[in-house]
Amino acid sequence: MSQKEITIYDIAEALNLSPATVSRGLKDHPAIRKDTRKRIFDKAKEMGYQQNHFASNLRRSRSNTIGVIVPRLNSYFMASVISGMEKVANAAGYNLIISQSIESKDKEMTNVKTLYNSRVDGLLVSLAYDTETISHFDLFLNKGIPLIFFDRVFEHPQCTSIIIDNYKAAYEVTQHMIQQGCRRMAHITADIKRNVYSERLRGFKHALMDAVLPYDEQLVFFSSLTEQAGVEITQRILALPQLPDGIFCANDTTAVSCIATLKQAGIKIPEQIAVTGFNNDPLSKVIEPNLTTLNYPGQEMGELAAATLIRKLDNKEGGSLNTIVLRHDLIVRESSLRKKV
Amino acid sequence: MSQKEITIYDIAEALNLSPATVSRGLKDHPAIRKDTRKRIFDKAKEMGYQQNHFASNLRRSRSNTIGVIVPRLNSYFMASVISGMEKVANAAGYNLIISQSIESKDKEMTNVKTLYNSRVDGLLVSLAYDTETISHFDLFLNKGIPLIFFDRVFEHPQCTSIIIDNYKAAYEVTQHMIQQGCRRMAHITADIKRNVYSERLRGFKHALMDAVLPYDEQLVFFSSLTEQAGVEITQRILALPQLPDGIFCANDTTAVSCIATLKQAGIKIPEQIAVTGFNNDPLSKVIEPNLTTLNYPGQEMGELAAATLIRKLDNKEGGSLNTIVLRHDLIVRESSLRKKV
Repeated sequence: MSQKEITIYDIAEALNLSPATVSRGLKDHPAIRKDTRKRIFDKAKEMGYQQNHFASNLRRSRSNTIGVIVPRLNSYFMASVISGMEKVANAAGYNLIISQSIESKDKEMTNVKTLYNSRVDGLLVSLAYDTETISHFDLFLNKGIPLIFFDRVFEHPQCTSIIIDNYKAAYEVTQHMIQQGCRRMAHITADIKRNVYSERLRGFKHALMDAVLPYDEQLVFFSSLTEQAGVEITQRILALPQLPDGIFCANDTTAVSCIATLKQAGIKIPEQIAVTGFNNDPLSKVIEPNLTTLNYPGQEMGELAAATLIRKLDNKEGGSLNTIVLRHDLIVRESSLRKKV
Repeated sequence: MSQKEITIYDIAEALNLSPATVSRGLKDHPAIRKDTRKRIFDKAKEMGYQQNHFASNLRRSRSNTIGVIVPRLNSYFMASVISGMEKVANAAGYNLIISQSIESKDKEMTNVKTLYNSRVDGLLVSLAYDTETISHFDLFLNKGIPLIFFDRVFEHPQCTSIIIDNYKAAYEVTQHMIQQGCRRMAHITADIKRNVYSERLRGFKHALMDAVLPYDEQLVFFSSLTEQAGVEITQRILALPQLPDGIFCANDTTAVSCIATLKQAGIKIPEQIAVTGFNNDPLSKVIEPNLTTLNYPGQEMGELAAATLIRKLDNKEGGSLNTIVLRHDLIVRESSLRKKV
């Protein structure tokens, strides 16, 4: 026979604290003094307290809130994702609360704690540039609170990832540029700790290799992919002894400021240098020449991420769903179109 | 002598509930059954329980979290505001949690409750299109939890508002267009329940009146100010028996899609129709001709809103701060420049 299960009341009695204090302490609630929280944790461990059982009971009282952690809210892509999440969450009676990691793993950790203390029912996450492990999500994972990654994901047996095939997408963009006559191509990207950038770089590289074109590491530029980064890297490219004849940027923001900087320097686009982007932001249809880009279905990704999370909350499916891959589309416009069709 | 002060322990005893349940019930916590919450509220009232005192004690245990409610996260302006808030909040050890009202007062109400249950230390709010009163913020105001409005504000003795002078800004845009020879002008705006749009409309109207030009209500268009709204209203304008010679849009998103639609119809900008926007989004420098617009210092507004809230939380100033007005700038570009300077 198993032992009598340890409850917070047993811990409270042992420590001469109220059950409410023990309950809050176990949830790492900031209202409980740090040293008291430590005493509670230590005693719970000593007595063999089963946190999971407690948590799963607790979690039955839904807050009907979904937490979202994104790197930044300043892109059209992310706004579309959030809009999709909001649509599905609202329809199902959930409210979103959103926080930004501003590309820092430390801030991401703080966000995880804040959203945990806000008692969200689940998390939707796209990772910061410099996050290397996801142990800071253990607070959620250990309690079986569902966590879904989207866009910038991390392989984990408990988590579903929602992505596009970044490798194939970048391969297609590069292949298109080769078909348009590009022979010496540059790539502007971001931190390859993140799947989206490492996969796009891999696609770029393999498309060159498959076309028996040289892959030159000097022509791969790592940046923050901001408007300003686009200007700075384009200036570095313009200072090269030999110019590339194509530049593939890992987002549209950078591609647009790259085009503007090239135009100012008197470069003809696409004749001298073809430029392509990624995401299909509204900007891509406004810049002249219009930008060739990859349509990334952000709204759909947001809807699917929220719907998958809510299905998990409703226990409508098990943990077998590992990865969902959305469709992407190459959108050819003037910025890369050197040959008339 | 005053009576002994009533505590949650007295209420708990009277109702035969735990103090933790009473505490949560008084905070309207969703984990407590509705009928139990009602019983707790009724008993607290009957016993003369001083909620404010309780709240102020409670609130001394800071969550170090600031709640933000915005209409939508899909604009460059709002991304800049949030970025400014994040900067100041992080430096002061606060974390932001953000929610969207998606322009609905019902959703705004839900957000208020969600953020209240997340125990935010204060709120930063820009109101939805259709919000008519702010009684749904009483949950915060009655407990003295600070609430700051920015951009779309509401006059309230307890709240500080952070704005730009929208009236003067719109007056300046319109005056500039008149100086460039516009005589028959249209204005595309949004719901005038919101100060920002009513003030811009007033500035537009008064500038016309002061220049002894007709103000024609048929040429004022109310919309959602989205890209799509810009297309649709421009098509309605193009179908008018007599075209206007100037269009002043209350945001850049709409101005940019207005320009694109006019160009497709073969209209010369600014020669036939001058077009102006509002906000100074990055798009305004990308569209050709470049867009004349009003620089709205979003980042600064966000920084100031967060700093003002944090000062209130630190009791560094009283409630005397009513309104803070930020500087704006008219930015003249080709889309309205008919006369060479």
